[in-house]
Amino acid sequence: MIKVGIVGGTGYTGVELLRLLARHPQVELRAITSRKEAGMPVADMFPNLRGRVKLAFSTPEEAGLERCDVVFFATPNGVAMQQTRALLDTGVKVIDLAADFRIKDVAEWQKWYKMEHACPDLVAEAVYGLPEINRERIRGARLIANPGCYPTAVQLGFLPLLEAGVVDAGFLIADAKSGVSGAGRKAEVATLFAEAADNFKAYAVAGHRHWPEIRQGLESFAGKAVGFTFVPHLTPLIRGIHATLYAKASADIDLQALFEKRYAGEPFVDVLPAGAHPETRSVRGANVCRIAVHRPQGSDSVVVLSVIDNLVKGAAGQAVQNMNILFELAEDTALADVGMLP
Amino acid sequence: MIKVGIVGGTGYTGVELLRLLARHPQVELRAITSRKEAGMPVADMFPNLRGRVKLAFSTPEEAGLERCDVVFFATPNGVAMQQTRALLDTGVKVIDLAADFRIKDVAEWQKWYKMEHACPDLVAEAVYGLPEINRERIRGARLIANPGCYPTAVQLGFLPLLEAGVVDAGFLIADAKSGVSGAGRKAEVATLFAEAADNFKAYAVAGHRHWPEIRQGLESFAGKAVGFTFVPHLTPLIRGIHATLYAKASADIDLQALFEKRYAGEPFVDVLPAGAHPETRSVRGANVCRIAVHRPQGSDSVVVLSVIDNLVKGAAGQAVQNMNILFELAEDTALADVGMLP
Amino acid sequence: MIKVGIVGGTGYTGVELLRLLARHPQVELRAITSRKEAGMPVADMFPNLRGRVKLAFSTPEEAGLERCDVVFFATPNGVAMQQTRALLDTGVKVIDLAADFRIKDVAEWQKWYKMEHACPDLVAEAVYGLPEINRERIRGARLIANPGCYPTAVQLGFLPLLEAGVVDAGFLIADAKSGVSGAGRKAEVATLFAEAADNFKAYAVAGHRHWPEIRQGLESFAGKAVGFTFVPHLTPLIRGIHATLYAKASADIDLQALFEKRYAGEPFVDVLPAGAHPETRSVRGANVCRIAVHRPQGSDSVVVLSVIDNLVKGAAGQAVQNMNILFELAEDTALADVGMLP
Amino acid sequence: MIKVGIVGGTGYTGVELLRLLARHPQVELRAITSRKEAGMPVADMFPNLRGRVKLAFSTPEEAGLERCDVVFFATPNGVAMQQTRALLDTGVKVIDLAADFRIKDVAEWQKWYKMEHACPDLVAEAVYGLPEINRERIRGARLIANPGCYPTAVQLGFLPLLEAGVVDAGFLIADAKSGVSGAGRKAEVATLFAEAADNFKAYAVAGHRHWPEIRQGLESFAGKAVGFTFVPHLTPLIRGIHATLYAKASADIDLQALFEKRYAGEPFVDVLPAGAHPETRSVRGANVCRIAVHRPQGSDSVVVLSVIDNLVKGAAGQAVQNMNILFELAEDTALADVGMLP
Repeated sequence: MIKVGIVGGTGYTGVELLRLLARHPQVELRAITSRKEAGMPVADMFPNLRGRVKLAFSTPEEAGLERCDVVFFATPNGVAMQQTRALLDTGVKVIDLAADFRIKDVAEWQKWYKMEHACPDLVAEAVYGLPEINRERIRGARLIANPGCYPTAVQLGFLPLLEAGVVDAGFLIADAKSGVSGAGRKAEVATLFAEAADNFKAYAVAGHRHWPEIRQGLESFAGKAVGFTFVPHLTPLIRGIHATLYAKASADIDLQALFEKRYAGEPFVDVLPAGAHPETRSVRGANVCRIAVHRPQGSDSVVVLSVIDNLVKGAAGQAVQNMNILFELAEDTALADVGMLP
Repeated sequence: MIKVGIVGGTGYTGVELLRLLARHPQVELRAITSRKEAGMPVADMFPNLRGRVKLAFSTPEEAGLERCDVVFFATPNGVAMQQTRALLDTGVKVIDLAADFRIKDVAEWQKWYKMEHACPDLVAEAVYGLPEINRERIRGARLIANPGCYPTAVQLGFLPLLEAGVVDAGFLIADAKSGVSGAGRKAEVATLFAEAADNFKAYAVAGHRHWPEIRQGLESFAGKAVGFTFVPHLTPLIRGIHATLYAKASADIDLQALFEKRYAGEPFVDVLPAGAHPETRSVRGANVCRIAVHRPQGSDSVVVLSVIDNLVKGAAGQAVQNMNILFELAEDTALADVGMLP
Repeated sequence: MIKVGIVGGTGYTGVELLRLLARHPQVELRAITSRKEAGMPVADMFPNLRGRVKLAFSTPEEAGLERCDVVFFATPNGVAMQQTRALLDTGVKVIDLAADFRIKDVAEWQKWYKMEHACPDLVAEAVYGLPEINRERIRGARLIANPGCYPTAVQLGFLPLLEAGVVDAGFLIADAKSGVSGAGRKAEVATLFAEAADNFKAYAVAGHRHWPEIRQGLESFAGKAVGFTFVPHLTPLIRGIHATLYAKASADIDLQALFEKRYAGEPFVDVLPAGAHPETRSVRGANVCRIAVHRPQGSDSVVVLSVIDNLVKGAAGQAVQNMNILFELAEDTALADVGMLP
Repeated sequence: MIKVGIVGGTGYTGVELLRLLARHPQVELRAITSRKEAGMPVADMFPNLRGRVKLAFSTPEEAGLERCDVVFFATPNGVAMQQTRALLDTGVKVIDLAADFRIKDVAEWQKWYKMEHACPDLVAEAVYGLPEINRERIRGARLIANPGCYPTAVQLGFLPLLEAGVVDAGFLIADAKSGVSGAGRKAEVATLFAEAADNFKAYAVAGHRHWPEIRQGLESFAGKAVGFTFVPHLTPLIRGIHATLYAKASADIDLQALFEKRYAGEPFVDVLPAGAHPETRSVRGANVCRIAVHRPQGSDSVVVLSVIDNLVKGAAGQAVQNMNILFELAEDTALADVGMLP
């Protein structure tokens, strides 16, 4: 059994990790920390876990994380980088669901996250946990930077096009729509039901923290600098991201075949038939990215539609996938949920 | 392996059966029928099943249902009663998710369902599939009448009170609220998004078909006639039923202890601590009924709050639970999903 | 022109007052106060008001409320009682949308609101602003206690029954469902979109502050003590209250005629035809209470369905109605909006 | 008083026309036709209209449309073109809310709408009812082609850029999101609540009927052929369209000033301050298009955000605006509603 600890389990990625890990046959949940809620049974905060998760929140000091095999950080940005070195030093593997280790350019990270990085050397060591590009490197890693939700959907959509060099990398557009759980379980007026229901809006058009993360990926796929515009929107879903990607074709190839071939062996990327439109609900609760590629009306525009559940393939599910790879388990262990429709 | 057939799989209870059975380790899905959609892969209609269910819809003639071990009817009312006898005669077990075999008084059934019953003798034989009251009889049955969604939530809420005889059975009220999937996957104006979203209404106050089904149960629990008022409401949920039950206390006992004792051994009924309020989302996708009992401000009113997912414990999940009991499997096989929250 | 001031305009009742008053032909908006947001144009917080309301928030000191003809308090409980006497003394009329002056029994109020009342004498003077029972007294009042949202829907539903004495006043039940805006525009986890969407729950079954307010009204209608159970629920609507009321008939009269006669002259109460089910969306944005009365299946149960928009007839609209009565304007001035459907 | 008739009032644009016209001080509603519902009071179908609209549906034969001053067609495509000539011949003005007269190229229209056009000469005469470009021509028209919902939001967003020639007209992208009422009040599975709630998807990427309508407008603004990609999405709103527009800057000018100047005199286009993000709810129920223009991070991408209520500025409100212009009334008569927020 893999001994698992979770730091910061009072948010949505925390409860989603627990939902998935509660049924993982190789996992023993050892601790979940929250200084504020220490002593409260987890199932008192998240009643869906009643009868399934017995743990109570504990303080970091009592948690015994150093005796775990792997620790997940489901914390705000800036927490994992303070605690990771000590854990690695005692032989614990670390999977950070926040952004601390995602961006290799530490100066860029510091600019966007507005804090000084505590351990730039670990940024260099960390493996970006997108299995579809880094599976082999994940296998031997000590420290995984679990990708952001938008970055997962957008990178998987652009990946085949940029690797193949069949679009103009100088003018890439991602128009992305996220459900409200993406904003986290924080008390804020802007994400109240009476504010976010029956409402649709763009936000952070001037610059979103996922922009440099995505650009880093796109540039590595393309092997050169890219021009990339990213506009996120808030839509009245609980869960789900729909990324609509636009590029200008620079070669006339069979895009459907390109995507199918690229993702042929991938257990968690599903390329839909030509002409299809993926729906976010088809992946609700499931660790899947569904993708369709279009070339509308014979124009030179390429349109890619990419959907994930932001809390699963966009966060907790992908983290468990990374853990499965790390510990050489079947990659889909505890990730076989069928999407919940309706 | 249990060979399973499903008649009428194009509705919400059908897709939910498939979601659950796709992961059942003892089940081999053999056929799913739809005359209208014959030939279409099920996953083309329900994209959440892509990669998980390979079956295509078949006509009833081609389906080979008579070679199955059990057949689920996920059909409109009046279909199962036409086909059940032939299946039973060839040794196939039948679980009907519709209402054909739920009400023992055939004349009453005919009045509410406005058709003649095709096989009153099978009504007499059928076992009402509420495991919490009929587990032993289900075990040996050939034909299970799977309870309605409202009836499951309401009966489980009143059961301990009426068995114990601690409320006035002459004035029982169930104020029930259902998500829109309860109306089925039928093209109707009243359940369009633009009609049902941001809207709340009662319906069928003059009389709902679940009223006689519930009353039949309540009278069997109480051992006498009851006075029962049932008001269903449509609320903008996809899934979920919340039943709020009212009765007048006729004895002064510890209601919390009464409920906890009655459901102590039940795997799928969860009595919440005193003072709690169950939420529908805590059972979203899970085969659980969560119940809380209150006695507000020392009055003589008893208030019971009972929640289920109408498609799971209220339909497909309970049907799988009944199948597990029928075939002497662990009762929670394929029913271990944790509720999806958020 | 009536010079109007609003204290505390950053919540939902505040913006709703502005939406209605912006189009009131006899009103001159003079000031809206918020110490925290002083200086910010109201339309920067509430973009629906762009181009329609020019005011900026001001501090209470700068607002010049004492030079207004009427001041609305759209504040948390306990604020209006601190400022009302000074305003009344300078001849300003006061309409309090909070609870400070609603309950005549000051001890009872103090128990439920957990603070000491600042001016019990003004509680005695205040007129409870439910025009359907108090129109004449409102006309000459200095101080109006605008009713709560649940109390408006519940009292208007029970009023004809209790006045006529045709139900058992000893066992009255109100099962009420509210949209999430009823919880106000406060940053709280429980009312986040990702918590409240696709979810339904009861709350405060042990005791809600609107219970004593409603009971006070019911007892005045009945002319005696009543037994009253109140269970509020949170439902995923932005706006809307649906109250389902239950009572036991004690006389056999024509309920439809009773309700139609009672509300014959009322501009803002609409009794639906026999057999109807009012929908909350039919009153979305409109200052109307729609009511239907049922006697299901000839039983002795009376069921009343009563719907309002909690922010209009349940708050700001009723406050404007009270203002219109106070200043002897046509009662429907600025209140002629048709409900927004869909 | 202007005598008004409505053909086909059982859909969402029909009820929205009634909501607006019921309060129009210069309008006398004379008839609303529906062969199927003839005889039924309109308020029985749309309970928000109770007490405000007394009309019943009538057959076209009984309606006396030829005695009206203006007739609105709120019908499916292909109906207005059958009846318009007769009305025009008797001196009645016609405003068609469907697509029959929107596209000047009749062959193109026939290709997209898959029927033969009944009166190509009237297409030539019809004035496209987007007041912001055609106000003077509307004034003297007999026949108005009221724009589609997507076309209104997209054209108003691109208009200043293309008129000024400051973007590359060869690669224009509109990523548009619509609420579900845009699909109309038709019984269809795809727009059921349980299908469309908590779900997001693109549709018709291969080609949508609004594409040629929008392209026609964009080409007239640009004075040349354009390359235009249009991807519509369905989002769980009742009302609202959010269009996110992308173009490549070809000149370095002050975009904020450009937009503010272009729309300076327009009563129903609101250019937000630099950096803003319009929300659909800010225009809920209001006849306004709110627009913001961005140039993210100094790139050469121009991003325009444009929101409308699809039933108001995108349909019925704009139709009333056109009627006001036609009859030389104040353009905002009956269109002064403030957006309903929350």
